[in-house]
Amino acid sequence: MSNPTAAMLVIGDEILSGRTRDANMHYLAGELSDRGIDLCEVRIVSDVHERIRDAVIALREGHDHVFTSGGIGPTHDDITADAVAAAFGVGLGVRDDARALLAAHYARTGLELNAARLRMARIPEGAALIDNPVSAAPGFSIGNVHVMAGVPAVFQAMVAALLPTLEAGKPLMSQTLRIERGEGEIAEALGALAATYPQLSFGCYPFFLDGRYGANVVIRGADGAAIDAAMVRLSELFPDPAA
Amino acid sequence: MSNPTAAMLVIGDEILSGRTRDANMHYLAGELSDRGIDLCEVRIVSDVHERIRDAVIALREGHDHVFTSGGIGPTHDDITADAVAAAFGVGLGVRDDARALLAAHYARTGLELNAARLRMARIPEGAALIDNPVSAAPGFSIGNVHVMAGVPAVFQAMVAALLPTLEAGKPLMSQTLRIERGEGEIAEALGALAATYPQLSFGCYPFFLDGRYGANVVIRGADGAAIDAAMVRLSELFPDPAA
Repeated sequence: MSNPTAAMLVIGDEILSGRTRDANMHYLAGELSDRGIDLCEVRIVSDVHERIRDAVIALREGHDHVFTSGGIGPTHDDITADAVAAAFGVGLGVRDDARALLAAHYARTGLELNAARLRMARIPEGAALIDNPVSAAPGFSIGNVHVMAGVPAVFQAMVAALLPTLEAGKPLMSQTLRIERGEGEIAEALGALAATYPQLSFGCYPFFLDGRYGANVVIRGADGAAIDAAMVRLSELFPDPAA
Repeated sequence: MSNPTAAMLVIGDEILSGRTRDANMHYLAGELSDRGIDLCEVRIVSDVHERIRDAVIALREGHDHVFTSGGIGPTHDDITADAVAAAFGVGLGVRDDARALLAAHYARTGLELNAARLRMARIPEGAALIDNPVSAAPGFSIGNVHVMAGVPAVFQAMVAALLPTLEAGKPLMSQTLRIERGEGEIAEALGALAATYPQLSFGCYPFFLDGRYGANVVIRGADGAAIDAAMVRLSELFPDPAA
């Protein structure tokens, strides 16, 4: 049985303009690896209704899960809920349970639940809420699409609430060997080794450090014994000259 | 006249697995902003031929430029050139000018130009080379697709060689106002202000720091005078209580 597959959709002009360096994708990638859900694709689109809608439609066809980040706050540029509702062809309205979460939060903090904040209680029809222990305004899951906040602390809290509810696969394991030779010296033997382990993936990541070329070879897969065996063979092919 | 548009395609299992945090996308986003080329979408796909090919086909239809990062080294998992050639339906072979660049580089460094390294001289028919002053192996441009290395130092050098050859637009300018209020307090007035400046984009990025909520409001666009005027109005709406 193969692992569940996933895609991520990051919504945010601030990342495409170079102002902000995305953190949520890197975080989610690590969490999904640990749970054996294979992240196959990420898309980053700007805050434009049609772009978000079309990306949701495209990604949810091809993957078991789609995780989105960003665009569910109270301001005019927060249009993710509208675009996701459009992608599913369902309505979007303020929902009582979401409103109650916000009302309790703002009562506690002494702030007004004004019209802008109430936008965060708009949930597409048929969605399930995702808990937000940081700032109350919930995310939601509709079909196989999980809609979460862009603020990293909130995104991470929502991921922590959501992931245990999803079917896990075999965690992706990996081992890395650092080889003090140029990638071009490694390539032929590495390719031959990779061909004998079709169930594993062999990545080769070159570096140039202190005037020396080298590469980190990463062997990944769900079969720990095969990774061990391949790593032993790799170490024999490229023994550490300092050892 | 509107700015040229761009998409980026990042190729790399190591990013999707959470092992590596992407740096090239953030770098390119900043460089494109400075040149007035609007980065509209980024996709990150794994090292799978069909995924790379299909993403190239999809992205080059909708944008003036597509920039790719990763997968052009000497190892078995470097399959970007093959996938791009397939996307354009052209052949891929070792080209004399690319081979000469590699031969000169390896002669200088005393290393062998072996079969694996020669893979890096395989260039799709009809492509133009992109200079690589770091490690010689060239990138290439075919049609509106610009194929560059994944190692950040090499990627950045290739971007520096390529960008001056592309038509520039009006640089995206931006100003930021830090407002010490929750996003929900800002939202209504900000939305009304944004509606009066349709040529600008208004982003609101909340933060939670030292127990206080606040937001950075970023006004972006190519019209510097309009940004100035909108920023003055924003400062009047939300005066700094400490000033």
